[in-house]
Amino acid sequence: MPGPDVGDNRVNLGIGDDTAIIKADSGEELLFTTDTLISGVHFPEATDPTAIGHKSLAVNLSDIAAMGGQARWFTLALSLPDIDTDWLQSFSTGLLLLAKKFGVSLVGGDTTRGALSITISVIGTVPEGTAVRRSGARPGDTIFVTGHPGMAALGLASIKGNIDLPDTIKTAFQKKLDYPHPRLQEGNCLRNTATSMIDISDGLAADLGHILAASECSAVIDSDSLSHWQPASSALAGTRLLDAALYGGDDYELLFTVPMDMSVLLEQEWRSSFSPLLRIGDITEGTGLKVRDRHGNLMKITERGYNHFHD
Amino acid sequence: MPGPDVGDNRVNLGIGDDTAIIKADSGEELLFTTDTLISGVHFPEATDPTAIGHKSLAVNLSDIAAMGGQARWFTLALSLPDIDTDWLQSFSTGLLLLAKKFGVSLVGGDTTRGALSITISVIGTVPEGTAVRRSGARPGDTIFVTGHPGMAALGLASIKGNIDLPDTIKTAFQKKLDYPHPRLQEGNCLRNTATSMIDISDGLAADLGHILAASECSAVIDSDSLSHWQPASSALAGTRLLDAALYGGDDYELLFTVPMDMSVLLEQEWRSSFSPLLRIGDITEGTGLKVRDRHGNLMKITERGYNHFHD
Repeated sequence: MPGPDVGDNRVNLGIGDDTAIIKADSGEELLFTTDTLISGVHFPEATDPTAIGHKSLAVNLSDIAAMGGQARWFTLALSLPDIDTDWLQSFSTGLLLLAKKFGVSLVGGDTTRGALSITISVIGTVPEGTAVRRSGARPGDTIFVTGHPGMAALGLASIKGNIDLPDTIKTAFQKKLDYPHPRLQEGNCLRNTATSMIDISDGLAADLGHILAASECSAVIDSDSLSHWQPASSALAGTRLLDAALYGGDDYELLFTVPMDMSVLLEQEWRSSFSPLLRIGDITEGTGLKVRDRHGNLMKITERGYNHFHD
Repeated sequence: MPGPDVGDNRVNLGIGDDTAIIKADSGEELLFTTDTLISGVHFPEATDPTAIGHKSLAVNLSDIAAMGGQARWFTLALSLPDIDTDWLQSFSTGLLLLAKKFGVSLVGGDTTRGALSITISVIGTVPEGTAVRRSGARPGDTIFVTGHPGMAALGLASIKGNIDLPDTIKTAFQKKLDYPHPRLQEGNCLRNTATSMIDISDGLAADLGHILAASECSAVIDSDSLSHWQPASSALAGTRLLDAALYGGDDYELLFTVPMDMSVLLEQEWRSSFSPLLRIGDITEGTGLKVRDRHGNLMKITERGYNHFHD
C-alpha cells in the first residue's frame, strides 16, 4: 500500500526497507502509541471497509490529540483472512484520506493472514515539556468536553435495533460511530491551557476516572450539561442521553480540565470551526465521581450505575 | 504488564497515559518498524508462551539490527482469546527478559480479546546518516551472513516430523526457531563497514533478492559455503542444507555486503563473541541470483529451485 504523498521532509526513508528512517529534532518530545481494532469487537462485522480504515487510524490519532501533540508518522499491521482487492481498496481509501487530512505519513507495514485485525502505531511530536498528561487536574479546575459524548453509543444501539431514532439523527450518530473525527486541532490549541486531558474511548465516567486517579482528586458533573442537547433531546429521554454520555464509549472526544479563571475566556475564544464545547462540571477535593442534578442533589457514580448519595 | 526497569532516562512518561513521552535528540535518526506474529502462521500453536514472547520482540529488534541501529522503545498490541494468567506470565517473562538484555523499554500497549496475535512496534535510533539500507550494494562487494541460515527451517521440519535429526542437533535447531537472537551488536558494529544489510526472515534467496533489487545488481553464491557445516553436515546431505539456507525463513541472521578490500579485515576482526561469520559470495553486474558449485558451474536461482545455467 503506497503511503500518502504528504511531502514529509523528515522521512528520510519510507516503506521498503527493514525500518523507516525519520529525522529527529531536539527541542521536541516524541509521543508513541498503539491501538488495535478487531472485527466484531471494535466495529460490527458488516462495517464498510472505508470506515474501518478511517477508524483504525482515527482512534490512534485521538491519543496523540489527547496529549496536545501533532501526529506525524504511523505503521500499519493488517491481518486479513484472505486477499480481497476491493476490500483493501476501500480500506486504504478511508485510511489514507484521514492520513492526508492531518499530514501523517504511513512509513511501514506488515500484512499477515489471519482473523481481521488492524494495529496501528503512531509517533507524534510536541514541543519539549508541553504534552498534556492525565495527572495535572487540580481542585477548582473546570471540566470540559468537546462534542456530545454518547453519540457513538447511541449510533451502535440504533444499528443493533435497541433504540428507534429519526432517520437524520440515526445517520448522524452512526457516522459518529464509524467515522470518528480525531480532535487534533482542538488538542493542539489546548496545549497551553489544559491542566489534564484524555480522549473518551471507554466512556466519560471511566475516562474521567482515569484523570481523577492520576490527579488524585474528585469531580462533580452537572447532569443537565449532558442530558439536554438538540436534536437528540427531542427523540430520547434525558436519562438515556446521560447514560449514553457517561457509559457509552467510542466517542473520541477530548475531555479536559482548565483552571477556573481561564474557563470563561476559553469558552469565548473557542473556534466556531471546532466541535461544540461543553462545560460539564468541576474538579473537587476527595475521591470518586459524582453527578449533580439541577436541584443540586448529588449521586455517586459507581462501576456502572448511579447511587443516590447524601452528603 | 509492567515495563522492564532499564533506567531509561529518555522516557519522560511510560505506560499509563494516552501515549508515552520520549525525549528526542538532534543528530540522530529514528528507526520505526512493526511486525505481527500470529498463532499457527508464525509459530506452531503448541509453542511455549515464553518463546512466543521472546520471538515477538526478537523479530522486530532484528529489523533495527538490519539498519545498524540501537533498539530503544517498543509498544505491544496483544490479542488473546481469553485471560490466561499462566500464559501471560510466561509470555511476559520471554518478552521482558529479551527487552532487558538489549535495553529496550516497553512504553505502551493495548490488550484486546481475539485470536492469538502479537503486534510489536519498535523505535530505534542511529547517528544521523549512518543507517545501513538495502540499496548500497555494488558490484565487487563481498556477501556475508552471520550464523548458519537454514537452522530455523530445519528445526521446524523436525518438529513436523519431516526430517529425522540427532537429539542434540534437533534441540539446537528448534531453539533457533523458537528463540532467535537479534543481531543488534553485530549490526551496530557493521554500521560503518556494510554497504547494504537486511535480516533473513523470508530465506536467504528472497532477502538477498531484496538487496539486489534495491541495489540494481546481481550476485553469485558459493554453494559450499552454505552446504557444509558441522555438526549439521554429519546428519543431513549438503543439498538439503543448501536448500534450507536458500529457502528456509525465520533465521533472523544478518545478510550484508562489504567492499572487497575490507572483507579480509572484517573476517580477522569479527569478534569471537559474535555468531559465526560466513563469506558466501560476491555482488556482480547484471540481474538475478546464481549459485556456483565447487567446480565453478553456475546455476540460476528462480522463484523456488535451481536451473542449470551455462554462460
